[in-house]
Amino acid sequence: MDRRSFHRRMLIGGAAVATSLSLAPEAFADGGPRTAPAGGKERHIKLFAAELGKGRMGYGLAGKKATIPGPVIEAVEGDTLYIEFENRLDVSTGLHVHGVDYTISNDGTKLTGSLVKPGRKRTYVWKTHAPGRRKDGTYREGSAGYWHYHDHAIGTSHGTGGVRAGLFGGLIVRRQGDLIPDTTHTIVFNETSINNGKGHAGPTFEAVVGERVEFVMITHGDDFHTFHLHGHRWADNRTGLLAGPEDSSQLIDTRVVGPGASFGFQVIAGESGGAGAWMYHCHVQRHSDKGMAGLFLVRREDGTIPEYDDSSHKH
Amino acid sequence: MDRRSFHRRMLIGGAAVATSLSLAPEAFADGGPRTAPAGGKERHIKLFAAELGKGRMGYGLAGKKATIPGPVIEAVEGDTLYIEFENRLDVSTGLHVHGVDYTISNDGTKLTGSLVKPGRKRTYVWKTHAPGRRKDGTYREGSAGYWHYHDHAIGTSHGTGGVRAGLFGGLIVRRQGDLIPDTTHTIVFNETSINNGKGHAGPTFEAVVGERVEFVMITHGDDFHTFHLHGHRWADNRTGLLAGPEDSSQLIDTRVVGPGASFGFQVIAGESGGAGAWMYHCHVQRHSDKGMAGLFLVRREDGTIPEYDDSSHKH
Amino acid sequence: MDRRSFHRRMLIGGAAVATSLSLAPEAFADGGPRTAPAGGKERHIKLFAAELGKGRMGYGLAGKKATIPGPVIEAVEGDTLYIEFENRLDVSTGLHVHGVDYTISNDGTKLTGSLVKPGRKRTYVWKTHAPGRRKDGTYREGSAGYWHYHDHAIGTSHGTGGVRAGLFGGLIVRRQGDLIPDTTHTIVFNETSINNGKGHAGPTFEAVVGERVEFVMITHGDDFHTFHLHGHRWADNRTGLLAGPEDSSQLIDTRVVGPGASFGFQVIAGESGGAGAWMYHCHVQRHSDKGMAGLFLVRREDGTIPEYDDSSHKH
Repeated sequence: MDRRSFHRRMLIGGAAVATSLSLAPEAFADGGPRTAPAGGKERHIKLFAAELGKGRMGYGLAGKKATIPGPVIEAVEGDTLYIEFENRLDVSTGLHVHGVDYTISNDGTKLTGSLVKPGRKRTYVWKTHAPGRRKDGTYREGSAGYWHYHDHAIGTSHGTGGVRAGLFGGLIVRRQGDLIPDTTHTIVFNETSINNGKGHAGPTFEAVVGERVEFVMITHGDDFHTFHLHGHRWADNRTGLLAGPEDSSQLIDTRVVGPGASFGFQVIAGESGGAGAWMYHCHVQRHSDKGMAGLFLVRREDGTIPEYDDSSHKH
Repeated sequence: MDRRSFHRRMLIGGAAVATSLSLAPEAFADGGPRTAPAGGKERHIKLFAAELGKGRMGYGLAGKKATIPGPVIEAVEGDTLYIEFENRLDVSTGLHVHGVDYTISNDGTKLTGSLVKPGRKRTYVWKTHAPGRRKDGTYREGSAGYWHYHDHAIGTSHGTGGVRAGLFGGLIVRRQGDLIPDTTHTIVFNETSINNGKGHAGPTFEAVVGERVEFVMITHGDDFHTFHLHGHRWADNRTGLLAGPEDSSQLIDTRVVGPGASFGFQVIAGESGGAGAWMYHCHVQRHSDKGMAGLFLVRREDGTIPEYDDSSHKH
Repeated sequence: MDRRSFHRRMLIGGAAVATSLSLAPEAFADGGPRTAPAGGKERHIKLFAAELGKGRMGYGLAGKKATIPGPVIEAVEGDTLYIEFENRLDVSTGLHVHGVDYTISNDGTKLTGSLVKPGRKRTYVWKTHAPGRRKDGTYREGSAGYWHYHDHAIGTSHGTGGVRAGLFGGLIVRRQGDLIPDTTHTIVFNETSINNGKGHAGPTFEAVVGERVEFVMITHGDDFHTFHLHGHRWADNRTGLLAGPEDSSQLIDTRVVGPGASFGFQVIAGESGGAGAWMYHCHVQRHSDKGMAGLFLVRREDGTIPEYDDSSHKH
C-alpha cells in the first residue's frame, strides 16, 4: 500500500472527514507535481441547507449529510458553476458568495430578491475568469483565490443567525498550473469556536509526512483572531506559496483575520520538522485558553507520531 | 450625450458629491486609458477646518463647504503640496498627514509645536518623491499610496475628539503611469459609522457600468472592521490592481482594517456582474447589523438598475 | 569621531539599550551597503529566563541581565541555532519559536513534552534554510523573516501568564544579501503596554539622521492594535523594503497587528523629513490616549533635535 492509499484509509471515518469534502478539478498524471488543468468547464453541483439539531445548520451535497463547514467547492479559472440550491430549512436563505463573478440576481440577499423560500430550489450561477487584457490594454485580474460562501439572510439581513448556526463553506478557484494538494481542510474561526466545535475545541487534521496539505481559512462572527500553525509557515499572498526568488511576500505562520475574510495556503506536512502533533490555534491568549485550538497530526510513514500518545488523544 | 457626461450630470446634487471632491492631476488625452503624468509640480491648496453643528467638524476647500470626510487631495510623485490651512474652529488643531514627506515642523501635533490656533493660518508643506536609487545603490521607495490626513490635537494629544467629530480626509499620491479613475470616493469607518453618517448608514455611491471607480478606505476610532464590497474585488497591494501575471498579491473582496490605516483600489463598475445595487459593508456581524452598510449603485447606460426600485430607496 | 561612533556612544546607558541587544551576523566591509553573508554556520547561544521582580519575567543572554523584551537573536538562512536554555524561574517554561525549522521535541510546549523544569537546562535547536527547489521541481521558500520566540507554558498551556510577564523576544532570519541595519530595536505591543513599560509609555529610541534603523514589531496578549510611526514608512512585505520597481507591495506607515504576529522593517532615520522627535504609537485612539506611544528621536549630526527640548523630555 502506497503512502496516499494509507493516508486515505486512515481518514475514513476520521474527525477530519466532515471538513475535507471537496469537488476537485482533474489533476495531471504522475511524474511531476499535480497542477490545475485549463478551465472553461461547466460544473453542476447540487447543494442544500439543512437543520442539524440544537440550533445548528449546515450545507451538504445532494446525497450526503450536511456538515459545518459545508463542502469545499473547487473550480479552475474559466469554469462556470451552476449551484442548484435546495432550502430544506424552515426560513428563507440564499447563497452569498465571495470573489467570483455573479449578477445581482445571484447575490443571495433579501435586498436583491435573490433568496430561496423554505422547501424551494434555485440555481445560483457563479462564473470565474482567467487573467487577461481589456480592450483598452489594461490588465484584468483572474478569479483565482481562496473564497467562501455563506448565508446572508437568516436572523438579520446580514445573515448573523445563519452564519452563527454554521451556514458557511469554502470555495477555491485555482489558476491553470496551480499546485493541487493531496488534501484540503477548512478551518473557520466563528466567534470563539473553530468550525462551531463543541467546547470550542478544533477538529484534528491528519497527514503523513511529505503530503501536500491545503488549508482554507475563513472567519465569521464579531471577533478578530490570529491564526497560528506550529512547525509550518506560508507566504502572505494569493496561493500561500512563494512564486520564486522575486516574490517579496512576507513568510508568516500567524495571520490577523477578521469576519468575512478568507485566505488559504499549502504546506508539505512535516517538511521542516518531521512528524508530530503540531498545534494550530488562535493566538489571542484568551481565545486559545478557551479552547480555540486543534491538532495537525503529522504521522511518519509507519503511522507513528513522536512525543504523542495516540491512544490518549490528549490535546 | 456620452457615458461620462451622463454620469457627471447624475452625480450633481447627489449623495455622493460630498465625499467625491477631489483635486485631480491632469490626465492623458483620449485613446487609451488615462494615466498619471510625470510629477514635479507645486500645488497650492487652501484648506480650512470648521464646525458643522451638533459637534461635527469637517475640512473644506476655500470657497466650498466643509464636509465629512474632507476633500480628497491628489498628487503625483514628485509634487510638493503647499496646504494653506485655516483654523476656523475655536480650539487649536493641525494637519497630521500619513505617508508623504514632511519635516517635524509639519507634523501637526502639539508635541512638535505645529498646531494652528483658532482663527489663524499656517502653510503645511507635504513633499513626495518618485522611486529611485540612493548614493549607496539601494532602492528607495516612492511616495505613491492611498494615504490620509487628520487632526492630531483636539480632545486629546492624539486627536481623539477631532477624529471622532469628522476631521479626516484622503490623500492619493499616484505614480507616473498609474491609471486615473473616472470617480473617486472616500469611505471612512469611524467607530461604528461610515463617514459619520446618521443612524450609522453609509452613503450611496453611484456609477454607470464600465466606469473606473476608485475607493479610498480609511479607518478611525477604537474599533477593527472588515471592509467588504459585493460583486467586485481588488488586489491586496499598492494600487489594488494586479501589475500583471507575475504579481502574486492576493485578490480580495474583504479586508481587515483598523484605526489609522488606509488603502485604496479601483474597480470597473459591474465588470463581472453588471448593473445592480451592490452592497458594501463592514463584515463584522454586529457592525453591519447596526447599519455599517451602504450601496454602490451601478446603473445600466439607460440609468436603470435590475432588481432595485430606485423610487423607494430601500436599503 | 565618525557618525557611527557618535551614535554608539550616545546609546550607551541609554533607554534604548535594553531592547537593542542583538547577536548580529558579520557584515560586509566598507564601501557599499552592508549585506548579510552566506549562511550555514552553527551558532551557540546561552539564554536564560528569570524573574525581574513585581511579577515581571524576562530572557537574558548568559552573563547579562534579563530584559523585556529579550535579546534579538539573529541568523542567516542556512544557519543552525543551538539555544542552551536555562530556566531560572520557579515554574516550568520552554522556548516556543515562530517561523524557523524545528522538530516536535523543540516545540516548547507541555503537549509535546518539551518544557524545562525550574533550575534545569535544555538545548533547543532551531534550523533555518535558504530558498531552493524540491525534487519535484516546486519552489521551496526560505526561512527569512522577522520572527519571535516566547513562553508557551506559564499560567496556561498557551503561556498567557508568561507572555503577560514579559517572556518574549525577536528573532531575525536574514537572506544572503539582505541589508544590515546600523541598529535594531524591538517593539512589543503587549496588552496596552509597549514592552511592558510602566504607565504604558513606550521606550525612546535614538538615531542620527541617515542611519539605517531596523524595527522588529511583535504583538502579544488579547488585543488588536495598529502600529504607526510618524515621518517614516515601509513596504508591507518580507523586509519592509521594496525589492525594486516591479514590487507591487503597499507602502504603509500604519499596520494592523494582533497577538502572535510579527513583522519588521528598516528606515533611514529622517530620510524624508530630517531630524525630529518622531512619535510612534498605537493608532487605536483609546490605546494611544492611555499611553501606548513613544518617541523615535532622530538627531542631527551635531546631536540637536529641532522643535524638541531634550532637557525636559516632554512626551
